Order: sequence, then C-alpha cells, then structure tokens
Amino acid sequence: MDSAPQGRDDRTTTGSDFLQLRIGDAPPGGLSDWLADRLRLAISDGRLPIGARLPATRVLAAELRVSRGVVTETYQRLIEDGHVAGRGRAGTVVVAAPLTVPAPERPPRPTGISAVFAGEPDTEVFEALRATSARFDLSPGLPDLAAFPRAAWLRAERTVLSSLSATDLGYGDPRGAPALQVAVSHWLARNRGIRVQPREVVVVAGVAQALALLAQVLTTRGITTVAVEDPGSLGARQQLQVWGLTTPPVPVDGDGLRVDALRRSGAPAVLLTPAHQFPTGVVLDGERRRELMSWAADGGLVIEDDYDAEHRYDRSPVPALHSMLAEHVCYAGSVSKLLAPALRVGWVIPPAMLHDDVVAAKRNSDLGNAVLPQLALARLMESGEMERHLRMVRRRHRVRRDAMIAAVRRHLPGAVVHGAAAGLHLMITFSTPVDDAELAMAALAADVKVQPLSWHRQRPGAPGLVLGYAASAPSDIEAGMAALGGALRALL
Amino acid sequence: MDSAPQGRDDRTTTGSDFLQLRIGDAPPGGLSDWLADRLRLAISDGRLPIGARLPATRVLAAELRVSRGVVTETYQRLIEDGHVAGRGRAGTVVVAAPLTVPAPERPPRPTGISAVFAGEPDTEVFEALRATSARFDLSPGLPDLAAFPRAAWLRAERTVLSSLSATDLGYGDPRGAPALQVAVSHWLARNRGIRVQPREVVVVAGVAQALALLAQVLTTRGITTVAVEDPGSLGARQQLQVWGLTTPPVPVDGDGLRVDALRRSGAPAVLLTPAHQFPTGVVLDGERRRELMSWAADGGLVIEDDYDAEHRYDRSPVPALHSMLAEHVCYAGSVSKLLAPALRVGWVIPPAMLHDDVVAAKRNSDLGNAVLPQLALARLMESGEMERHLRMVRRRHRVRRDAMIAAVRRHLPGAVVHGAAAGLHLMITFSTPVDDAELAMAALAADVKVQPLSWHRQRPGAPGLVLGYAASAPSDIEAGMAALGGALRALL
Repeated sequence: MDSAPQGRDDRTTTGSDFLQLRIGDAPPGGLSDWLADRLRLAISDGRLPIGARLPATRVLAAELRVSRGVVTETYQRLIEDGHVAGRGRAGTVVVAAPLTVPAPERPPRPTGISAVFAGEPDTEVFEALRATSARFDLSPGLPDLAAFPRAAWLRAERTVLSSLSATDLGYGDPRGAPALQVAVSHWLARNRGIRVQPREVVVVAGVAQALALLAQVLTTRGITTVAVEDPGSLGARQQLQVWGLTTPPVPVDGDGLRVDALRRSGAPAVLLTPAHQFPTGVVLDGERRRELMSWAADGGLVIEDDYDAEHRYDRSPVPALHSMLAEHVCYAGSVSKLLAPALRVGWVIPPAMLHDDVVAAKRNSDLGNAVLPQLALARLMESGEMERHLRMVRRRHRVRRDAMIAAVRRHLPGAVVHGAAAGLHLMITFSTPVDDAELAMAALAADVKVQPLSWHRQRPGAPGLVLGYAASAPSDIEAGMAALGGALRALL
Repeated sequence: MDSAPQGRDDRTTTGSDFLQLRIGDAPPGGLSDWLADRLRLAISDGRLPIGARLPATRVLAAELRVSRGVVTETYQRLIEDGHVAGRGRAGTVVVAAPLTVPAPERPPRPTGISAVFAGEPDTEVFEALRATSARFDLSPGLPDLAAFPRAAWLRAERTVLSSLSATDLGYGDPRGAPALQVAVSHWLARNRGIRVQPREVVVVAGVAQALALLAQVLTTRGITTVAVEDPGSLGARQQLQVWGLTTPPVPVDGDGLRVDALRRSGAPAVLLTPAHQFPTGVVLDGERRRELMSWAADGGLVIEDDYDAEHRYDRSPVPALHSMLAEHVCYAGSVSKLLAPALRVGWVIPPAMLHDDVVAAKRNSDLGNAVLPQLALARLMESGEMERHLRMVRRRHRVRRDAMIAAVRRHLPGAVVHGAAAGLHLMITFSTPVDDAELAMAALAADVKVQPLSWHRQRPGAPGLVLGYAASAPSDIEAGMAALGGALRALL
C-alpha cells in the first residue's frame, strides 16, 4: 500500500490512515457493517480504483484494534457482492466499481410564467401550472380542501385499523374492497339515481385511471376513437390520447353535447360530462339525453364522467345518464371533487360486456387500490359523514360562487358568465378579441392563477377563462378578480 | 288514469293510489326529490311503461295534499332528465325508460380445488387460490400480517393529518410525495447500500405496477423481450406478458442467474431477484454479479426486483445490484413484504435515461399514488419505526423458518430444502417423480394451501413446492406440514 498504515494510541481515534478509517465512528456491535460501507464508498468514489489492493486482514485488524475476524468477514462480503476478489498471495484486489456516474441533472422544467402558457399545452402543463406560485389560485379543479374532514377521516382510520383482519392486509381484490363496493352502490343510489349491484362497481385510482383502463380495453377491441366535448376537459382529452385514442371534437351548446354532430362524426364512443359540462357548466337537457340514448341504443358507447355532479346549489339534481342507459354507459366518478384529489379513489361501473376487461386492466395496472383508504372511505360514506361534509362544503361553495359572479360583474364588466348553478368552477367568455392564453399569462404575472378557455378547445371559439372558486375565500376571490380585471384592461 | 285517484283523510296516510304514493314516506322538506325518485323508479321497473300518462299536476297535488308547484317542479325535472315529455293537452307522457336490464350474473369462477391447479395457471390463479379457504395457508408471498404495526400507522396518520397543508390534499406529484422520496432514499442508503438523490425515486403502487410501467416504457422503445429467471416468479412473468413482452427463461443454479445463458439468449433486458431469488432462495454470488455487470455494460438493462431483501436471518446483507450498476439497473422495491401488500406502495429507481419516461407512464396510469399513505409511510421510515418493526418480524420469521425446516425433515423426509436463510418462503424439491400440481391439489383437499413449483417454471424441472412460513404460527406450520406429508404419502 502506498499510504503506510500507522497505528494511533488514543482510543477514541484508533483507526487507520487507510481511508482515514476511525474506529470511533463505528457503531458498537456493527463493526463489519461499518467497515464494508466505508470500503464500498471508497471503491465507488474512486479512492480505491480497480486493481487497488486492500490491506492484509491482519494489518488492518491491528490498526483498527478489532479482531481479525471482523476484517475477514468484511472482505468476504465485498467478495460476495462482487467488488473485490481474492488473488491468493497477491492479496485482495478491487475488481469492480459501482458505476456511480451521477444522474445527470434533469434540465429544470422552465416554470416561468411564459413557459406555462406558451404554445400548445402538453401533458405536464397542469403540473407546471401547479408548480408556479401565485397569491390567488383561481384555477379550476379543486374543492375546498381546507374543509377536508380530517377528524372524521382519522376516526374512520382508527375504526378500520382496530377492526380489520390480518387477511385484509394481504393482496386485495382488484375490483375493490367489498365494503367500498357496497358503500359506493349505496352512495350512487342515494345521490345519483343509479341502481347497481356492489359487484358491478370497480374501484379505481380516480377518473384519470378510469379513462386509462377504458382506453386500454377499447383499443384492444379495435375502438380507437372516442369523441369528446368541445370545449371539453383538456386533461381528459390528453389522457385518452396518450393511450392511443383519437378524440374528435363534438360541439357543446346551451343544451349540452350536440348529439346530431356526434352522430355525424361516426365515432363509436363519446366521453361527456352531462351533469355539469366542463368547462361550460351546461346541463345536458332532456331532449339531448333522449337523443343520446337513441344514439347509444344504435351501438354507441357513452362514457359518463360524473365529475362534480354532487355539487349543485339552487337547482334540482339530475340523475346520472347511467340510470337510463345502464347497458350502454360506462359510468365514472371519484372523490377528487367530493373530498380531495390526493386520496386517488374513484369508481367505474362498466357496461356488463366490458366489466371483466376493465377488471383485468385494473389488475394488470396495479393489482387494485390500497385497502386502508378504501375501508376508511366506505365508513365515511355509510355513516353519513360524507353527506354531512357535502352539505357543509355546498354552503361554502355557493357563497364563493356568488362572490365570484359578483366579482366578474364588478371587475370584468364585458364578460359573460356561463353554466348552471353547480360545480366548482365558472366559465366566462369575452366578446372582445383577446388572446386568453396571453390574459392568463398576464394574470399570473399579477399573482392570479386561472386557465385559458382555449386550453379546453379543439376548434376556434370565443376567448375566455375557466375560473375555480371552491378553494378560495370570498375575500381572495374578490382580490384575485380585481387583479385579473387590471390585467385584462392592461392588455386591451 | 286507470287507477282513479282517491284522497285519504288520515294525515299520516295521505297519498295517492297512483303508485301507492304515501306522503308520510316523504322526508320533510324533500317532497319534490322524493316524488321524482318514486316516479323514476316506477318508470324504470315498468309500472309506468313508455306512453303512460302521468296524472295531471292539479290532481296529484290534491291527492298528496301538497302544493301544485311541488308536482310541477317534479314533472319538470323528469322532462329535463328525459324520462317524460309534455304533450300539450295530452298531458305529460313517459317517453323513455332507464334500461335496467339487470346485469347478467357473471358465471361464478369455479373456485373448487381442482379448478385452481388444473391446467396452465392464468392471470387470475393467485386470486383463485386466495379465494379458496384452507385451515393452513402455507402459500408464499406474505409477511406476518398479524404483526402489522397498526398503532404506529395510526399515530403516523394522526401526525400527518394534523400537519399537512390544504395544498397537500390536491393533485400530487406523479413522482411521489417529496417526503417519501426522501425517506425512501434514506431507507435504501441505510438498508440496501444504494445512494440516490430523492428526485431519482419514483413512488409507485408496488412492484407489479413498476413492471407495468417499465413494460410500457420498454415496448415504446422497441424492446419487446425481457428475460426472466427459471424457475422464477409466475406472477412477475405474467405481468410482463400482459403488457406485451416475451419472457424467455434463463436458468438459475446454486449461484443464481446463469449470466452465460442470458448472454446467449440475446435478450436486451432481464428481470431478476438477486438478493433472494424467487423461488429458489439463492443469492446471486459475487462472480455472477460481475458477469452481469459486464453484460449490462455491453448495453443490457437489469431490472432488479429487490422484493424481500430486508428479510435475512443469519447471513450478511448483500447490497442491491443498483449500488454497483446505477446506470444500467432499474431498481424496484415495495412495502408489500416489509409491512403489507394492502398498502400498495413501492418505488422504482430507473436509470437516468428512462426516468422521465417512467414518470410519464406513472402520470398516464393514475396521476400518482395517494398522498396520505405516502406521508404516513415516510414518517414510519424516518422515525425508525420501520426498522423496529423489521427487527421484530425478523425474529418471528426466523423462528417460523426454523419450524418449517424441522417440519420438512419430519414430515417430508425425501424433500430437499433450497436457498439462503432469508426471505419469507422456502423451496423444496422431490427426487421422486410426483406431479407437484397434483400434490398441491391434494394438500388443499387436506386443508393446506401451498404453491406447486411447476407454476414458477417455464422449462421442465424437478417437482417441488414453494412454502410460505412468515404468516403462520409455528404450531400451524407443524400441523400443516404434517397434513402435507400425509397428502404426499397418499399420492406415492
């Protein structure tokens, strides 16, 4: 060895110059672990290059004042994991180094204001928008997260943890925990007019996963086109596209999806949001529902994204399409707008002929949702806590919606507010020719996050914004909208 | 109307013969909701067929002793949702019925004993085996679930719920919660000799999802073959196959994967379990590790399934392959064997060049794992509770392993026990020519669940069984093995 080992006398600094090993650093009882780690590190960072010879076990043991067995065991472990090899009289030699080329720094995504709104939005655009910080977040998609029933959730978890069996902790059913299948079927009967057997419910990780699974099932069956609403959710359209589907646009008017245009499109399936269309807020009217049913009866598949149907304020509930068309509707819902997106729990009720395929796709994706949160959610649903929570947030959301409409009138006098008194967002359009992506960019510069309507359009149309109000206090809505109004005036 | 409405005088039974509506059934303040529900139900079940005329609003209101506005509003809602239509003087008529063809009963899967073990195992075979009941479950794959640290988990949840921000409840990062990325990087450094930056860790829903995501990434890049160990995990092989990969077998011997055979196979990638091979229990030895590193350096991709590496008893830890080959190894691990499969949490550390693709696949799959369990797990890992739990179950598992080895010697005297003192299962082989699927079937008839080794083989080989011991008390292991021995003797 080049660096000749020299013993030290001070017990606390006993060690070896070899790699500056200080026995005082080693945890009691873990000498061999410690020594192996230090050697691996040195091999990895090049201090012990390939070909380097390790000190003789006798020498190193003496230097470290440890038994020779400790060093022998350490070397044996390095031999076992392939870093070093015994070379007889030539000693123990480094033969392989961990390749620790540091992972190249990924170029940080430009999260500046212009990057989010410049060009066509890609599949990372929602993350990019979330990653930007702004004092007022009026982007759509979130319920009032501050109202999340933390205490009720914890109580439910405690009950679940004290009552589940060891078997419940094993691999679960890819269809979902039976208790949640039952609770969802009850919830849908009470709140959405849907009558299903619990076994028809497939628990998934939210509507995004529901669309992924369906896309897999449909493409396997040769269906590569799913028509979507226009304007319609950019995120949903992207999700279908990344799974290989084309998504021709079907116009939405004041009565909802134009079923005549759907029929002309020749698409074999359609994804829509009938209860509260995203982003227009329109409710699919009775005549259109009948037309759609007739289209479906001719062989079309309806994918019903019931994403915020439980949020309505001064209008009657509209039952889910599924209640009319069970054999032709694949129903999807989630708790993302009821409780929180972070829970990643949703459900699909596929038509009977697709059920087994959807279950197989779920199994192949992840073997099924996590069990504990499913059981906790089932308790919240069956105990009435969910409805209690929903009534509470509905009151808050309604006040916030009113605050936003008032603020639109006050600060954006030329804007038209669209949609029914429901949901968690508003759409506004402008009659003046303003570039809404530019407006959203200017708003972000003024500390207000909003989404441009053009994100959610496939064909040209009036400029506008999609504004979420559920997650902001009325005073923040007012202040944010005032700043937005300023940004708009500066652009015109 | 055929059934002439007749008013009743008794307030509590005020109602209408029409559909046997009893106003006493209606909740106070929800008359219109209630009435709409009853009408929809009647339309749905055929009591009000298409073409049926509803009572005049005036008449029904009088019968029910409610204001006419309630009935008008109800009819309006049914018009909106497309069930009925106004026909002027002809009144209000049912025009569409919900299609409530009951979902056909799926033929129940034959879960009898012979069904599970007859023929080639399909992707539902593990669920089928779980669904069969047996007094002694000695099938592999589960840790000691009775030891799940329920109190510690609940404490972690409480801390998380009391400290998270509202933003944490929104859509999370598809890469995983930053706190868990950090905790996993620390865990892997402490326990598996892996040094990674937290941002290199991608949180997934277990190793099954890791394989699904990787398969998607690889096939997109034109890689359609991933070699697997033989014998090797049937479940992992099926998972790769359902995502379109072919899985040529590479033999495993007493030193682990035969890298020479891997090289000859020409496969561009290999999935293996180097720390404790499934099912043989062999540890990949130092020479093989070096050979594999050399194969990888020539362009091969190693997928390291580190599925039960933390469970070792009287042997030294072997660091993960990833610690030597970071740029060529995709590392995957999970808490399924550390805590419980029901949690559905795992992690992948892809090589840098695949990182962004794996993240995109995770985003497209489900937008990311649920946040609350990630944060709870991060706390368990960072607080030392996980290591405490691991030490505790390690002691229990070791006793159970010893009990099983003793029981094999006692009740299956001809069987050979394979593998290192690690993991959660044993492999045994028989020198006598017995059909191991038949033996597993006979064992199940004798109330003992085991897996035939042939499930996990692609090429012919000695018959055997894969036996899980971690989830059973020593007395159950002894009794189950005695019953298994009886089943074997009856077959020979």
